[in-house]
Amino acid sequence: MPSNQQIVLDNRPEGDAVASNFKLVTSETPALAENQVLVKHHYMSLDPYMRGRMNDSKSYAASQALGEVMIGGTVGEVVETRHPKFAVGDQVVGMGGWQQYSVVDAAQPGALRKVDTTHVPLSYYLGAVGMPGVTAWYGLVKIINPKAGETVVISAATGAVGSAFGALAKARGCRTVGIAGGPEKCKYAVDELGFDACIDYKLHKDMYSLAKALKEHCPDGIDGYFENVGGMILDAILLRMNAFGRIAVCGMIAGYNGAPLPLTNPALILVNRLKVEGFIVSEHMEVWPEALTELGSLVATGKLRPRETVAEGLAAAPEAFLGLLKGKNFGKQLVKL
Amino acid sequence: MPSNQQIVLDNRPEGDAVASNFKLVTSETPALAENQVLVKHHYMSLDPYMRGRMNDSKSYAASQALGEVMIGGTVGEVVETRHPKFAVGDQVVGMGGWQQYSVVDAAQPGALRKVDTTHVPLSYYLGAVGMPGVTAWYGLVKIINPKAGETVVISAATGAVGSAFGALAKARGCRTVGIAGGPEKCKYAVDELGFDACIDYKLHKDMYSLAKALKEHCPDGIDGYFENVGGMILDAILLRMNAFGRIAVCGMIAGYNGAPLPLTNPALILVNRLKVEGFIVSEHMEVWPEALTELGSLVATGKLRPRETVAEGLAAAPEAFLGLLKGKNFGKQLVKL
Repeated sequence: MPSNQQIVLDNRPEGDAVASNFKLVTSETPALAENQVLVKHHYMSLDPYMRGRMNDSKSYAASQALGEVMIGGTVGEVVETRHPKFAVGDQVVGMGGWQQYSVVDAAQPGALRKVDTTHVPLSYYLGAVGMPGVTAWYGLVKIINPKAGETVVISAATGAVGSAFGALAKARGCRTVGIAGGPEKCKYAVDELGFDACIDYKLHKDMYSLAKALKEHCPDGIDGYFENVGGMILDAILLRMNAFGRIAVCGMIAGYNGAPLPLTNPALILVNRLKVEGFIVSEHMEVWPEALTELGSLVATGKLRPRETVAEGLAAAPEAFLGLLKGKNFGKQLVKL
Repeated sequence: MPSNQQIVLDNRPEGDAVASNFKLVTSETPALAENQVLVKHHYMSLDPYMRGRMNDSKSYAASQALGEVMIGGTVGEVVETRHPKFAVGDQVVGMGGWQQYSVVDAAQPGALRKVDTTHVPLSYYLGAVGMPGVTAWYGLVKIINPKAGETVVISAATGAVGSAFGALAKARGCRTVGIAGGPEKCKYAVDELGFDACIDYKLHKDMYSLAKALKEHCPDGIDGYFENVGGMILDAILLRMNAFGRIAVCGMIAGYNGAPLPLTNPALILVNRLKVEGFIVSEHMEVWPEALTELGSLVATGKLRPRETVAEGLAAAPEAFLGLLKGKNFGKQLVKL
């Protein structure tokens, strides 16, 4: 029964999330009941959706309870087992949360999944070949559903979702344009992720300026947009959408802190007969096998080479998470345990 | 060759449309070429979409050209014909525009359609059994696609689209709630159009007040919304939409005059995983036969009894149109010629 460091939600943010919303505690891992498995986490995932869970208000799903371990995806290995299908040493992906160990009821469908690290590094199962990758896949394939030759755009282009989106869209013959913050991220999007162009939103102080840049890089207009951000970027995108364009709404990170985030001209949804659809990938488990197969294949063939930002040790998680919300990470944000 | 009074667009509105944007002119109807038909209009239709056409800016479709006859749906009878399938006396529906007569190339598919007035009054082919009815049908059936027992809401509930929507939704077993302006319209929606409830938006000064009324009349939340208006009403609706709700965006009348009409909290599209889709019914001609069959049957069986507001004479059209934009009409706005 190893000792287990954990990070719990201590209190809810008022406005911006801060490090003191979290508290590091230590507990003992309990003895296993039948069908339970003890997993030692090697990496945990930090994702923007976690910010929504910190609020008490209605969001994606139930709020994160105060005093409980922060929710989150993890990869690791089985170190004790009372389930016949899991052996010590198995590499597994699950939702272990912000802690060093988790006790998992392995009989519960989907709670724990064994993964093969022959061609795909373990940590990628939290990113390109995990929830963020499937998120990109769902928004692109099921909502935007582009034809070859169409133009698709994604904000937060160099993040975990954006990286996968770029590779998936290029594989479908789309003109693929990213939006990211700063010249380094934009260069990386084009040079390493295969985007046809990437626009640095920090160079644009209003929607009209950004819309002008979009016009330059999307000369045939925009047919599909994957929304990770909201705010001024969405306003600018709407000015450039083609008739019958599709917008997959996956995140509105700028709005998580409670600041009102209006959409300037919703009438453009009508003018251009757009379809705007919000989704949460965990509600579409039926697509995961197909999506993960394609994503794994893109990684194995070198067509998807995602970058990772790795914080060291559980105690570093809160600062890394706050940095993620401000766009300080580069690619998938992980914590190595 | 009868003399033909016409109303042309003389100049474009700056802000609100005004009567002096229009000009009444008189011309001669030309001699017919082969396959042409001369139609004497009995009724012409006034519809909110016409306001968008008066602008120079990008809207639904091409702008209305200055100096040309205002576009619009018409019903009437054939008074001269050089097309073998149309005889003098045939009752027809078409897009004759704001004038007493139109010359139609009857060989052009869809340009002119003969109608049967045995069970459906001629004027209804401009409303419940015409474009507005099909508009309601498309938004309800193809976008909202409700299950029996779901709650659907429509703004401008007593207009031509709203009347048809109410009957179509009740026929599908939905709880059907209208939004309209004033107690008389609300009473009519419930007593004669079959709505389960109707909310007078004029009693509510902000989105929170209206959202409270929506909560009362939609105790199980809102699954589908048909948007004719935009602005504060849409803001309130978004606060009450259920997860996986669908919003058909057909009009944003409050925004036509160029005033910015922001959406206060677009993040709710994500939070509730909504689908928001704009459409224009003329782009979906494939559904018209099915929709018109159902609408005609609802009228013939007394389940859809739309009201009409009829202005007398072509010269009355501009004021009647401006009144329509301000919600002064009651039911379908027509001009009798």
